[in-house]
Amino acid sequence: MKERPLILVTNDDGITAPGIRHLVESVADLGDVVVVAPDSHQSGMGHAITISSILKMWPHSFGVEGVTAYKTSGTPVDCVKLAIYKILKRKPTILLSGINHGSNSSINVIYSGTMSAAVEGALEGIPSLGFSLCDFAEDADFRASRNVVRTLTLEALKRGTPHGTCLNVNIPKVPPEGIQGVRVCRQAAGHWADAFEERQSPGGRTYYWMTGSFTDVDKGQDTDEWALRNGYVSVVPVQFDLTAHHAMAEVNQWNLNLPT
Amino acid sequence: MKERPLILVTNDDGITAPGIRHLVESVADLGDVVVVAPDSHQSGMGHAITISSILKMWPHSFGVEGVTAYKTSGTPVDCVKLAIYKILKRKPTILLSGINHGSNSSINVIYSGTMSAAVEGALEGIPSLGFSLCDFAEDADFRASRNVVRTLTLEALKRGTPHGTCLNVNIPKVPPEGIQGVRVCRQAAGHWADAFEERQSPGGRTYYWMTGSFTDVDKGQDTDEWALRNGYVSVVPVQFDLTAHHAMAEVNQWNLNLPT
Repeated sequence: MKERPLILVTNDDGITAPGIRHLVESVADLGDVVVVAPDSHQSGMGHAITISSILKMWPHSFGVEGVTAYKTSGTPVDCVKLAIYKILKRKPTILLSGINHGSNSSINVIYSGTMSAAVEGALEGIPSLGFSLCDFAEDADFRASRNVVRTLTLEALKRGTPHGTCLNVNIPKVPPEGIQGVRVCRQAAGHWADAFEERQSPGGRTYYWMTGSFTDVDKGQDTDEWALRNGYVSVVPVQFDLTAHHAMAEVNQWNLNLPT
Repeated sequence: MKERPLILVTNDDGITAPGIRHLVESVADLGDVVVVAPDSHQSGMGHAITISSILKMWPHSFGVEGVTAYKTSGTPVDCVKLAIYKILKRKPTILLSGINHGSNSSINVIYSGTMSAAVEGALEGIPSLGFSLCDFAEDADFRASRNVVRTLTLEALKRGTPHGTCLNVNIPKVPPEGIQGVRVCRQAAGHWADAFEERQSPGGRTYYWMTGSFTDVDKGQDTDEWALRNGYVSVVPVQFDLTAHHAMAEVNQWNLNLPT
């Protein structure tokens, strides 16, 4: 008898965020679901791990039948590591991260805790998918997202994912009937112009809030940004071999002799 | 008259770490050096940014003539953003990150605050190099590293770096005369087997320390791990387009039709 799939779920908005609940409910009947997620908001944590301080972990009552859950003091990547190396007795069949409240398209993938958790799963050889809805609202409409999560999870369970990659899935902010379809895309070239808003503490000390505005500088129609603007779900296969192989020849033309 | 280079320096071990001092001293005569670095240890922070809380920043007396310095409460990537969007009046000519106490070769690049700072610089179109010495010790021998930093910085100032990349430079733990040369490499396929050491707080609560052991699973002789094991400095061009272009065709064979 084929073993029931073990579905590991995490996110970066924290274990009580609506997005992770929608994700779990979308797949709860497909296998044994174990949630290991941060106990608080961990957005923008990228691939951060907790190596200079301690980690805490608590059982959590997730409130969906058959679902086991733990919350941790760590980052999304910490959660994946705790799940694999501390909590679970067997290797997860699949890792699902999200559903993030807010887009992780284009360059946002590198700042994203949601996607870093998926990358960490892929590093462990687990088919891993990160899901993000392009709507920051706490009460965002996740109906279309649930459909997307279930469809792609079923395909990934059936086929696996390409070696050395995870999937970055972004869902446009439209009602279910507005979704034009699913497109496999490349990451758009985008840029954040940051700004730092300066404020004074009650004690008169200066502090800053980071803000910024994103620009899609990519004219291509094969990008995730283009897909999302046009009502499509974008799927970008993301890799963790960061080598710019095409750039090696150029650096090999440098004078690399060290003076003695 | 050609403008004097503006050299932005950061790290992830904190502004008082010996590594950043060695870096600054190696290049101080090549341009105007501005240091913007974390006020404390930020190892393993990956590409984390501070968006859910505030940032603080203070002038810092670095103690090297002509060098301006600021310390911040943020991550290495926060430091780069603060430098570019808040502190500096012109775009840096080059960004140097490190010298990290400890290796950032192979998959360690994705956890590394040192390298994430360099990636952030590259995102801003600034030639950016991250330097790491394969020695965690506070009193590590940085003599060979200083030579490497200066040689590669001079080349990068002269030639620029390949578009859309930064350089991940790792220096083996050998005395200067033991360095076999510099090799342009690809990122080795490596894996961390993590472990969580369980302890009890004085109050009887369980907590964990993350530990782990790294394995180079890559047999190639063109990798950074191979180079370092054989006494070479490794230089890997690192990109921030994470698209696994070669995997798109495979995902395009999935059934991507959403049920209505």
